[in-house]
Amino acid sequence: MGTDAPKIQVSTSVVRRMSKYLRHLEELENDGISRISSQMMANQLGLTASQIRQDLNSFGGFGQQGYGYSVEYLKSNIESILGVHRKCHAVLIGVGDLGRALIQHIDFGKYGVSIAYAFDIGGQTSDSRIDGVEILPIDALEQTVRSCQPQMAILAVPPEPGREIAKKLIELQVFGFWNFTNVDLHIGNPDAVVEDVHLADSLLTLRFMIGQKT
Amino acid sequence: MGTDAPKIQVSTSVVRRMSKYLRHLEELENDGISRISSQMMANQLGLTASQIRQDLNSFGGFGQQGYGYSVEYLKSNIESILGVHRKCHAVLIGVGDLGRALIQHIDFGKYGVSIAYAFDIGGQTSDSRIDGVEILPIDALEQTVRSCQPQMAILAVPPEPGREIAKKLIELQVFGFWNFTNVDLHIGNPDAVVEDVHLADSLLTLRFMIGQKT
Repeated sequence: MGTDAPKIQVSTSVVRRMSKYLRHLEELENDGISRISSQMMANQLGLTASQIRQDLNSFGGFGQQGYGYSVEYLKSNIESILGVHRKCHAVLIGVGDLGRALIQHIDFGKYGVSIAYAFDIGGQTSDSRIDGVEILPIDALEQTVRSCQPQMAILAVPPEPGREIAKKLIELQVFGFWNFTNVDLHIGNPDAVVEDVHLADSLLTLRFMIGQKT
Repeated sequence: MGTDAPKIQVSTSVVRRMSKYLRHLEELENDGISRISSQMMANQLGLTASQIRQDLNSFGGFGQQGYGYSVEYLKSNIESILGVHRKCHAVLIGVGDLGRALIQHIDFGKYGVSIAYAFDIGGQTSDSRIDGVEILPIDALEQTVRSCQPQMAILAVPPEPGREIAKKLIELQVFGFWNFTNVDLHIGNPDAVVEDVHLADSLLTLRFMIGQKT
């Protein structure tokens, strides 16, 4: 664990906001801003200042009353809290358009995530690599996972192979899932951590908000 | 507006949970379950029963104390609240892997969203259609938007053309944005509705949760 922050019990909503703060601090840093108050951050992010202070205080603070936060110091602390400097190995299942888009669209390295291998389900591609990530047939999953022991699996497959593959991965001691299958995986294992990306929920929410405006 | 529910002031978090309930009710219906209590839904979704009742009550209820909810009736009411039967026209900007994955991965029709056209930025594809959606060069954006008047734009492009295109679309009276640019658009127009899909926040949240387990 090195110099990482100790483990603290916080809700996923707090962690999600910490990620948002980190992204915002990066933008501030790019704009050459070195100090920011919780009130200014709150205005820019559509949150309340007390919410931000409360979130940050749950990890120990990092600001001084009346002086605001040092952008660099706060950013580096949030990076350390979120563990981006610790390497996390991942495998990606599914190299259709979605899997390919994830590899090419997301800067995994920036977040300490390294995609060890990607797995092709039923001949989705004839490429042997995408952006440097080696592609293997799904038959090689078990042996590969046993040898590289990833902590995270990214499921970019339809629900049906998805649930089965998740079950298999749990058996192989992979407990972290980034779930793009559009269904709940119903893993029911207390050691598993699942982050669902339900794009349909997001679309429906937008749909509703547009309807309210027109 | 037909028989749609009247406009009600609710927070995006409530709407997001309504989408989650809808998805869950669809699964229940597929499993042949016709009645469910808020407590059972709560257990299955990892929420509290009072949260669910409170959300549903903000739109008028739909259940009877002690009898639970009719799955079919509740589902149909939530669909109506979310407006999935009202047609919403959309344009998709960017037909790289991400845009292509969205077209092929998401059942837009099910949510009442129809992608009128997709726009290619700088020769991303030589296809003239993806899954039936006609692809036009980005130069045709202005004229096409003026004539088809979409309510939603899906931005599957990098930040830099993204912000500029959003600004252009606002001028053309498009106010709903599904934002996959990975940055805040800073639109600053009170009529605009932006639903950000920050995949990096999601990845970081999972990253943290995995770290807490190991």
